[in-house]
Amino acid sequence: MATEQKRPVILVTNDDGIGAPGIRNLVEAVKDLGKIVVVAPDKPQSGMGHAITIGVPLRLNKVHFFEDIEAYQCTGTPVDCVKLAVDKVLHQKPDICISGINHGANHSINVIYSGTMSAAVEAAIESIPSIGFSLLDYALEADFTAARKYARIIVEQMLKGIPDKHTVLNVNFPKLPVEEIKGVRVCRQAYAKYEEDFIERNDPHGRKYYWLTGEFVNFDEGTDTDVWALANNYVSLVPVQFDLTHYQLKKHLEQTWKFDEA
Amino acid sequence: MATEQKRPVILVTNDDGIGAPGIRNLVEAVKDLGKIVVVAPDKPQSGMGHAITIGVPLRLNKVHFFEDIEAYQCTGTPVDCVKLAVDKVLHQKPDICISGINHGANHSINVIYSGTMSAAVEAAIESIPSIGFSLLDYALEADFTAARKYARIIVEQMLKGIPDKHTVLNVNFPKLPVEEIKGVRVCRQAYAKYEEDFIERNDPHGRKYYWLTGEFVNFDEGTDTDVWALANNYVSLVPVQFDLTHYQLKKHLEQTWKFDEA
Repeated sequence: MATEQKRPVILVTNDDGIGAPGIRNLVEAVKDLGKIVVVAPDKPQSGMGHAITIGVPLRLNKVHFFEDIEAYQCTGTPVDCVKLAVDKVLHQKPDICISGINHGANHSINVIYSGTMSAAVEAAIESIPSIGFSLLDYALEADFTAARKYARIIVEQMLKGIPDKHTVLNVNFPKLPVEEIKGVRVCRQAYAKYEEDFIERNDPHGRKYYWLTGEFVNFDEGTDTDVWALANNYVSLVPVQFDLTHYQLKKHLEQTWKFDEA
Repeated sequence: MATEQKRPVILVTNDDGIGAPGIRNLVEAVKDLGKIVVVAPDKPQSGMGHAITIGVPLRLNKVHFFEDIEAYQCTGTPVDCVKLAVDKVLHQKPDICISGINHGANHSINVIYSGTMSAAVEAAIESIPSIGFSLLDYALEADFTAARKYARIIVEQMLKGIPDKHTVLNVNFPKLPVEEIKGVRVCRQAYAKYEEDFIERNDPHGRKYYWLTGEFVNFDEGTDTDVWALANNYVSLVPVQFDLTHYQLKKHLEQTWKFDEA
């Protein structure tokens, strides 16, 4: 019983939905490292960003998708899942929260749109150290072998201790066999993003509609970025903050902007 | 014609929907400062964070809700509105983008959940300087007099020039008559947030559901924060960044974490 009590509680969520192979691989990777509890969306929630559900009630149902693991599916967003897990499932803060493994990249500016990362950021706001994991392969049949190996290494590292309970890490895995991965690199977020374009079509009733598409463009030549690391066969690890204050600009505006002549 | 060409193009959006009084007040406040184009959601989108619409097509319809102002309602999120406005309405980047005036506060950590601010952040990612405006009054019948006055002052200031095309400002107005407002303060984002709680009820069929609620708590004692400024009768102005890298933690992890013993 004494050792049982010391096992860390690890909350697992994602944004591809509880049925996605990515979350199953994440659970498999870490299940002997602590008491695992899964609370994840009942359907895909990609691109939901930090959305929360205000206007409609949420449902939470126990499921038996994972052998010997307590798991719940939720009708809400990834952020809702974290909030509900703490308040209605665990009734306490877990030791860490891990989110993913996302089917598709969440490096560079994509951290802002990502439901996977928003779940992790939500946990960190709640003083739960967290990690979002993403694999650079959108395929449902993606090979998670290398991702599993490195996810485990990074979770073990976090369980050994972190400097701050608000720590949140954005980890991306290159689409490579494990033997070709050179290791983990701590990086900064690249200024790289999708250059959007909307496909314009007419529906069967002749009314126009638009569908988001886009091409990924890297505007950042740094060799210290996540995009660089991934392109050079490293796992990228970006420590993320949720204080969005632009301190340098704050100082500049304090010195230069005058609002008194109203 | 020469002067006509020099008028700045001002894109206006929001997250409460194109029918909300807040966006109407924002248009009224700035309409003589440039060529105004409104592209806003056709329904309330509060709490959508930086959500984008990937899985379904979007519609965009011209409306005549504002006298002499080109306006469109969109079926998507606030972020979708900014993307569609640039790509399919303006066919160019506007000089600035303004979002709001939100019915309700978006100070402190709420910047992360806010559709109003996400629209502004999206614009800044696209190299369009932007401002999100929010009033600390959720009522549809809120008095926007003071908000209008200060929104105009801040937009004028931004049109005079900004240090960086990625500039994004989070502006909140206290719920006060104009004569009680002491001015504008440049601030940092407070660590203050809603402490969530879910109300648990049974539906008419006896099945449990949860509804998000919560109490606002300020954990930050600084007098340089947006929460402090608003409580002390100032308009708060927080410069926001979208590089979420936690540089201090990055340095710490580079020095202390080892991943090689895989």
